[in-house]
Amino acid sequence: MSGTLYGLGVGPGDPELLTLKALRILQSAPVVAYPAPDHGTSFARSIVAAHLGPHQEEIPIVVPMRVERFPAAAVYDKAASAIAGRLAAGHDVAVLCEGDPFFYGSFMYLFERLADRFPTEIVPGVTSVSAASARLQRPLAARNDVLTVLPAPLDDDALQARIEACEAFAIIKLGRHFARVRALLERLGLADQCALCERVTLDAERIVPLAEIDGDVPYFSMILGYRGAEAAILRGLGAQPAAESA
Amino acid sequence: MSGTLYGLGVGPGDPELLTLKALRILQSAPVVAYPAPDHGTSFARSIVAAHLGPHQEEIPIVVPMRVERFPAAAVYDKAASAIAGRLAAGHDVAVLCEGDPFFYGSFMYLFERLADRFPTEIVPGVTSVSAASARLQRPLAARNDVLTVLPAPLDDDALQARIEACEAFAIIKLGRHFARVRALLERLGLADQCALCERVTLDAERIVPLAEIDGDVPYFSMILGYRGAEAAILRGLGAQPAAESA
Repeated sequence: MSGTLYGLGVGPGDPELLTLKALRILQSAPVVAYPAPDHGTSFARSIVAAHLGPHQEEIPIVVPMRVERFPAAAVYDKAASAIAGRLAAGHDVAVLCEGDPFFYGSFMYLFERLADRFPTEIVPGVTSVSAASARLQRPLAARNDVLTVLPAPLDDDALQARIEACEAFAIIKLGRHFARVRALLERLGLADQCALCERVTLDAERIVPLAEIDGDVPYFSMILGYRGAEAAILRGLGAQPAAESA
Repeated sequence: MSGTLYGLGVGPGDPELLTLKALRILQSAPVVAYPAPDHGTSFARSIVAAHLGPHQEEIPIVVPMRVERFPAAAVYDKAASAIAGRLAAGHDVAVLCEGDPFFYGSFMYLFERLADRFPTEIVPGVTSVSAASARLQRPLAARNDVLTVLPAPLDDDALQARIEACEAFAIIKLGRHFARVRALLERLGLADQCALCERVTLDAERIVPLAEIDGDVPYFSMILGYRGAEAAILRGLGAQPAAESA
């Protein structure tokens, strides 16, 4: 009998935003796989590092980082093959996924290679978008608001049309597109209703009005914007709690 | 010193989809508040019932249910007043929120009444949309997909324009709008790329192709749809795992 492939959402970064289900499966899985950069440590692994044991086999999936991530077919073919070997031998494999496995995650590249052949279960996680609105202290969407998630690589016309058709938006995958996206939001008169949210729920978290940003932003950042808000995004930032840190 | 108001996301329904952080705060809060129907039990409370203790004060916030929920100012005024009393006395108050507190949740009605006066922290949770895509076994969004969340009360023209401008969509708050929304999706030729997801992660979960639904749907249901998918939604359903139940 083959093992089960788990896509395990580990949340946005704060280790406490792991679910009880993800923790249970993580602790019982003999094999744990996770995306890792070619230099440095795996962010997904770092979130759950306290729960990993020496008896667990670890399979880092090294995805070369460029300006932004891209699917590298050969990398996922090789990782899928390694994971398939463990599953066929009857071992469960937990694949750690930042945020939620099916919300713009790289897990889909393993899923599409393995889910037809092995029992597969997805454990949803807290997304970085939910976490950003929580830390910003501003509801993401309410009542009949339309909420749209937009990848920054879309061109200006595509972004503008979609922004103008919603009440709240999250622009993800900013990377090298940040300056262009910011200029677009300024042209649309929305800059003061947008916040840049970096590394949310981590010690290095930074949440500031978009207008205050000068220079580049890290990979793990997003813009949260609100159309038609009667007050500037600053009010939300002003209400930021003196709460416990993560 | 006043207590802290916590908006506690308790996830989509499976008690195991609670985060470690929500559990810790829940167990340490002397006062727990939650939305409750005028008849029957509170869904939010039922998710965490196993963790509640006899020493905790409970404040049910009874919101009259009609065909669909609506903000009842008087109800929230009264609840906010009761909660403010506990906070002013130095007690922390945890408000249980289905899914994520800031994702179309009623918590915002308390937040807007209390966050200016008391320390407030939002603990994000797993949304029903993430959970639905996990159970459907179909990635919600990937690469440069645009993902839009649409409340069903929007009129047909508004829905159509937004559906045609995204790759993946979730239509929430179906209630009495279900038949109309379904007819719209059929006219758009998208019915076989949509799934109805009811009570996801609960024992009574039902996830079926939209075309198979005859009759009404419960309040806790949504449509997940994918535009431009080369295969019908059925393939995703066919891949549903013989996994452990929640």
